[in-house]
Amino acid sequence: MDKDQCALTPPMGWNSWDCYAANVTEEQLLRNAEYMRENLLPYGWEYIVCDIQWYEPLAGTGEGEYRPFAALSMDEYSRLIPAENRFPSSAGARGFGPIAEKIHRMGLKFGIHIMRGIPRQAVHAGAAVKGPGLRAAGIANPFSICRWNSDMYGIDPGKKGAQDYYDSLFGLYASWGVDYVKVDDICNTNMYPHMPYSGRGEIELIRNAIDKCGRPMVLSLSPGPALIEESWHLSKYANMWRITDDFWDHWDSLKDMFRRCELWQAHVQAGRWPDCDMLPLGRIGAGFKRPRYTNFTRDEQRTLMTLWCIFRSPLMMGGELSGCDEWTLSLLTNGEILDVLKKGVKPRQLYRDDKEALWMNSAPDGKINLALFNLGDENRKLSCRLDQFGIDGAGLRDLWKAEDRRVSGVICEELPPHGAALFRLSKA
Amino acid sequence: MDKDQCALTPPMGWNSWDCYAANVTEEQLLRNAEYMRENLLPYGWEYIVCDIQWYEPLAGTGEGEYRPFAALSMDEYSRLIPAENRFPSSAGARGFGPIAEKIHRMGLKFGIHIMRGIPRQAVHAGAAVKGPGLRAAGIANPFSICRWNSDMYGIDPGKKGAQDYYDSLFGLYASWGVDYVKVDDICNTNMYPHMPYSGRGEIELIRNAIDKCGRPMVLSLSPGPALIEESWHLSKYANMWRITDDFWDHWDSLKDMFRRCELWQAHVQAGRWPDCDMLPLGRIGAGFKRPRYTNFTRDEQRTLMTLWCIFRSPLMMGGELSGCDEWTLSLLTNGEILDVLKKGVKPRQLYRDDKEALWMNSAPDGKINLALFNLGDENRKLSCRLDQFGIDGAGLRDLWKAEDRRVSGVICEELPPHGAALFRLSKA
Amino acid sequence: MDKDQCALTPPMGWNSWDCYAANVTEEQLLRNAEYMRENLLPYGWEYIVCDIQWYEPLAGTGEGEYRPFAALSMDEYSRLIPAENRFPSSAGARGFGPIAEKIHRMGLKFGIHIMRGIPRQAVHAGAAVKGPGLRAAGIANPFSICRWNSDMYGIDPGKKGAQDYYDSLFGLYASWGVDYVKVDDICNTNMYPHMPYSGRGEIELIRNAIDKCGRPMVLSLSPGPALIEESWHLSKYANMWRITDDFWDHWDSLKDMFRRCELWQAHVQAGRWPDCDMLPLGRIGAGFKRPRYTNFTRDEQRTLMTLWCIFRSPLMMGGELSGCDEWTLSLLTNGEILDVLKKGVKPRQLYRDDKEALWMNSAPDGKINLALFNLGDENRKLSCRLDQFGIDGAGLRDLWKAEDRRVSGVICEELPPHGAALFRLSKA
Amino acid sequence: MDKDQCALTPPMGWNSWDCYAANVTEEQLLRNAEYMRENLLPYGWEYIVCDIQWYEPLAGTGEGEYRPFAALSMDEYSRLIPAENRFPSSAGARGFGPIAEKIHRMGLKFGIHIMRGIPRQAVHAGAAVKGPGLRAAGIANPFSICRWNSDMYGIDPGKKGAQDYYDSLFGLYASWGVDYVKVDDICNTNMYPHMPYSGRGEIELIRNAIDKCGRPMVLSLSPGPALIEESWHLSKYANMWRITDDFWDHWDSLKDMFRRCELWQAHVQAGRWPDCDMLPLGRIGAGFKRPRYTNFTRDEQRTLMTLWCIFRSPLMMGGELSGCDEWTLSLLTNGEILDVLKKGVKPRQLYRDDKEALWMNSAPDGKINLALFNLGDENRKLSCRLDQFGIDGAGLRDLWKAEDRRVSGVICEELPPHGAALFRLSKA
Repeated sequence: MDKDQCALTPPMGWNSWDCYAANVTEEQLLRNAEYMRENLLPYGWEYIVCDIQWYEPLAGTGEGEYRPFAALSMDEYSRLIPAENRFPSSAGARGFGPIAEKIHRMGLKFGIHIMRGIPRQAVHAGAAVKGPGLRAAGIANPFSICRWNSDMYGIDPGKKGAQDYYDSLFGLYASWGVDYVKVDDICNTNMYPHMPYSGRGEIELIRNAIDKCGRPMVLSLSPGPALIEESWHLSKYANMWRITDDFWDHWDSLKDMFRRCELWQAHVQAGRWPDCDMLPLGRIGAGFKRPRYTNFTRDEQRTLMTLWCIFRSPLMMGGELSGCDEWTLSLLTNGEILDVLKKGVKPRQLYRDDKEALWMNSAPDGKINLALFNLGDENRKLSCRLDQFGIDGAGLRDLWKAEDRRVSGVICEELPPHGAALFRLSKA
Repeated sequence: MDKDQCALTPPMGWNSWDCYAANVTEEQLLRNAEYMRENLLPYGWEYIVCDIQWYEPLAGTGEGEYRPFAALSMDEYSRLIPAENRFPSSAGARGFGPIAEKIHRMGLKFGIHIMRGIPRQAVHAGAAVKGPGLRAAGIANPFSICRWNSDMYGIDPGKKGAQDYYDSLFGLYASWGVDYVKVDDICNTNMYPHMPYSGRGEIELIRNAIDKCGRPMVLSLSPGPALIEESWHLSKYANMWRITDDFWDHWDSLKDMFRRCELWQAHVQAGRWPDCDMLPLGRIGAGFKRPRYTNFTRDEQRTLMTLWCIFRSPLMMGGELSGCDEWTLSLLTNGEILDVLKKGVKPRQLYRDDKEALWMNSAPDGKINLALFNLGDENRKLSCRLDQFGIDGAGLRDLWKAEDRRVSGVICEELPPHGAALFRLSKA
Repeated sequence: MDKDQCALTPPMGWNSWDCYAANVTEEQLLRNAEYMRENLLPYGWEYIVCDIQWYEPLAGTGEGEYRPFAALSMDEYSRLIPAENRFPSSAGARGFGPIAEKIHRMGLKFGIHIMRGIPRQAVHAGAAVKGPGLRAAGIANPFSICRWNSDMYGIDPGKKGAQDYYDSLFGLYASWGVDYVKVDDICNTNMYPHMPYSGRGEIELIRNAIDKCGRPMVLSLSPGPALIEESWHLSKYANMWRITDDFWDHWDSLKDMFRRCELWQAHVQAGRWPDCDMLPLGRIGAGFKRPRYTNFTRDEQRTLMTLWCIFRSPLMMGGELSGCDEWTLSLLTNGEILDVLKKGVKPRQLYRDDKEALWMNSAPDGKINLALFNLGDENRKLSCRLDQFGIDGAGLRDLWKAEDRRVSGVICEELPPHGAALFRLSKA
Repeated sequence: MDKDQCALTPPMGWNSWDCYAANVTEEQLLRNAEYMRENLLPYGWEYIVCDIQWYEPLAGTGEGEYRPFAALSMDEYSRLIPAENRFPSSAGARGFGPIAEKIHRMGLKFGIHIMRGIPRQAVHAGAAVKGPGLRAAGIANPFSICRWNSDMYGIDPGKKGAQDYYDSLFGLYASWGVDYVKVDDICNTNMYPHMPYSGRGEIELIRNAIDKCGRPMVLSLSPGPALIEESWHLSKYANMWRITDDFWDHWDSLKDMFRRCELWQAHVQAGRWPDCDMLPLGRIGAGFKRPRYTNFTRDEQRTLMTLWCIFRSPLMMGGELSGCDEWTLSLLTNGEILDVLKKGVKPRQLYRDDKEALWMNSAPDGKINLALFNLGDENRKLSCRLDQFGIDGAGLRDLWKAEDRRVSGVICEELPPHGAALFRLSKA
């Protein structure tokens, strides 16, 4: 199957990282899945993704985010498996199968996070890799390590057994029923400037393994920022790739996303999504021992949703869903806004300076989705001339206000600091 | 008019640089134009472009390529004008008007080269710029100079009169009948790492000036390599931009072009052409005091033409046209090959390593143009599986050999060192 | 004469920059000289240095620090001369001669600032250089400009006449009676990363010119930070070179100077002085339209003086001298502190972290000068073990407090935030 | 003891690397020691140094220089010990004691190579470190690995037990009788640009450990090029540090050493030696499966010896000593040449361009050692004016030719390509 088919619109879902860091549990995953089924599924939200270190029994008990040289749950073929204490249904070598099955029964899809490579512990213990005579030490690259987590060695694509290992991983994941894989430490290769390492080799091994595993899976690459020089390669082999480092609830990061979207605008295509990262909305941070309600103001949250939608970034909700407040829920269930994401095409920046930005994408029936952003710290009047769209006047629907009006010549709108408007224009 | 309209297919023409360096004359321009009319026009070749320093009476008489602090021909508004000793028809303030007129009468189009900015001599002489009260010194950026030619200061876009100056330039060029402008020292902004200079400002001034001048002109930006980070900006404001430094007749440079085309493949679109630079074919180098027949072997020349066409680079012949040998002429007048350039769309690299490369673009009627390249130094058998195009078998036309055959399963082809094949596949 | 002879101890003086920017006048120079004679000369202060653009009649009247393309006062040999409106005694082609003479009569020495290179205006006007057939355009490097001032082109050392030009400059300066030259835009060559320019050529031309001019002159190079890779070359050809960009009255810059002194400590030698830049003490900033009393607290001022003295940096007072307040005067006239500068040798850092630093240099008669610095923002107890000097106990003179005591084992001292102590230890 | 005392002149010895790569044996060490005692000891050669991976039983049996994830000989405290199959006398936990004892009995000194850090195998096996409750995993930095050898993790200086571990290492080495330690992967910290790693921490731990171990040891740091920014730190904590990557028998590398010596000239001091690396002379390369007689011509070998001696680099012979040919032996046993190394002080470069170089150092009794180098590929006449030394004439001894003559005014010498002369001047 063409790999683009499994993500023809930007994937939408929930990911455990923003709430639960490396420590999420089975119960938390399923609780969020329940909420999604009941409240969000009709709007297109469908993925439940279990983020990093589900194989680390003591995740979250160290000083930093990860315990150095932690002992990880692993099977006889050097494959990491869920930590039973955190994911009880995985007992008996069932892995994530039971969780995936429950999630599928809700009409949802299930995703997992992995680090590229093979566990360091497997390599140093002389462990086997599935396949005749294969050993972890024979395929590991001793000089390819992650900069921020000590679990893995990278795989040397030139070694016999390298593809076999990744095939064995994705075969296992397919048997569990995984629909989405977020592969980490593989995208921002600028992190490894003096290493003879481009990242391409392991991406291609993973692509091959997915294509052979018998189950469609969305391939999502992290962390960002991805390199624009690699845009063609990422487009060819992945479904989504992060264009930013981890995104959190700071205005500076949100403002900087406009620069990133500008850079990547020409590369947004069906099945191939530059990814602005998760939505740190609602209640987040518990797993980092810093639980909080998002720092973003409501205007900033509208700006976030507007940019992600007009640019067509994947949407991965980061906040705990159960007990979600009305305001947050309203952001996630605005069908008109989400249609800008799902049905708009060819997002492009019309203008940007330090104070404001204008974006559009093309809606069905020749309509135009138009977003105005006030990037400054004071109220600001923005204007947009219609003649650049080849029209004099138009019907304008204000999607956030759910109001209609007519405009001619120039659209003028006053926006609060860090605020946004999103319009749909219909030629007169 | 939409700026893309004036270059819906990659521009094709002749440029004086490879032959005549900074020293071309009116007689040489017209001689090449005559040849083009008689031999090349039916194949789509149409631009005659006068390259750098047509305003320098003593060009080519110094030690290097340019005389430092040369006295340049200039009008009362700080605008450079053709040196009369080299372009006699420009006498009487007629500029390039008479030459353009002759070229237009041949059914061809006329282009000129300019350096961004305003002459240093104008600034230091206190010269005027067209417009009330405007002076050269008022719009020049004293810290923006070219690294390899001492003629100009850059324009500071923030100064009053900056747009007026560029408007006055393009107004003059429009009055001459210019159809194509190659703007230099504006594209590879990596040359100026510590300058607060992104290049964008002057590109936008020039775009505005062309849009206002009343005459369509192709906007070509040099030198390369352009920055991939600027791809969206270059696409928006220019028609073509160089993706390489000056290209000459060395195999290493030709081989390196495959890396550059790989990088830029997603950005090839109608009206927006990444540019592999001129074709240093036939007789070149006279103006550099190193006259020679191209160093490229015939296999390398075929590789060059095949890559430029499958990638859809603009084609600017560099060798002297008059008295062109049969072989070179055959390269420029192969209609089937040139159709790959003109009618193929969506060029993309299928594979590349150090030894070989495969490219395709999509021909009309669902046909596929497929190029195979042997990048190594020995004979090599290349193969290409048809199932990646969703077919089992196909009719294959070998465009260089003008032969037809049928293939099924896998296309296999043995190629000489540095050689290429170009096929058109028709689904069975 | 060995060039080191003219600066056997770190030069001490006053420089017009911190007060008067590019706009100092004859009257201001002489007023400060008078004050120096009366109050500071006995302590070793002796240079009066006229900083940048004394040749620019309208200096300080533009928007920024320098007017772009300003018309400069120049003689018939492309040599800049004092602007008569600012330095009236220079009328009649007497240059700085009359001022230098007055200053010499006070028992002081006179210094000037120059930019490396030749005026752009001379080059573009076709002006002569002293010497048969020499022209400004023949020795200027059209690609070597300063990044922040538009007055000059650099000199191409490979050109005939390059040495003649610099000889003619220093011949003129010698005839005026100049004792000290601060050459600018020549030291931090990292500013010009892609230029084929190491700075060495012009430094050597200037060294030669001084050696030939018949008058000893201190050679001071700016701006910083100088490159540590060039330490051997700077030591060989200059008397002092800046190890920092312009230093102003900000704690962050003062704290950062500890890092710079650490880096350069091995290169402090008689006649060869890494230079921490001027002392922005007392009343400064008038010429920048931001007149103020120094922002440094008294503790910070003591820290500044202590570091400059223990490290043996040249001392160039920046504040207006006339009407100097008692406190500032006390800093400049503490003989015991200044002896650490003049007579200490081999400065070396004993310890540094983010919170504190310890330095020493070796005083005559086996005594030790020891400086303790509190780099943190809170009171701090510092300690220093005596055994690292091979002693158990010592007589200790607190130079700032002018008190004596005995210590044994460990010196302990509590210091206020950003404060310093300076001790002289005498072995028991 | 002051650490400088153990290397008051540049250390001279033999090191196993150039001959035996990572595979040297006890027999080879002792054979070279025997030769040194009999032939070289009177000239000051005294160290026998066992280079890398003496703890790897199968060293040299893999594809590259080191086997990835090799199992290393280690004691119960995570300390590497000699591989018994290669160093039989180490059996019974005697380590290098027996070898050191034999070498000491010859009147020689014994050195070993170590990699900074702790074995990865110890960390992943949960091994102990000497000291109550200490574990390898507790002091290893999981993100600090060597770029070219997979044996070790770096030590995190901030961890409890970090100093204990290094103390336990050097305690063991002292018990063996080690006199010299070459610590690797610690000097060229530019290899690790994005790591929060300056190298300083582990250097200081090692310095402390040596100071506490009760036995003087020369501390030599590798690999180069060391960073000039770290010169003060290296001088303070080490006895020698490499200023170049591994040096082999290629003229380009030898020529490039002149640039490196220029850079480091001010830092050559007793006990503190910038190190030009080993002498690849005579028979080398066997351990790399490329046995050969040095590629250097005799002129180049003289140039090498002349530069190392005038600059005062440590001298570590790389070629197999036993059966040394007459020519090579003559290079190593020229007492007059070696006196330039041992007794000259203050080496400094007088001149260098692409074709020639002149160096001097100051010999006892006011004499001058002067070296002339022809860096070009053709015969060349070099000259050197005596007045720069403040003399008109001098007695000149040609140290290579062992001839005396008188010179006045200018020394002129014709040298063959890549050749050198070394003179001792005595003021008339």
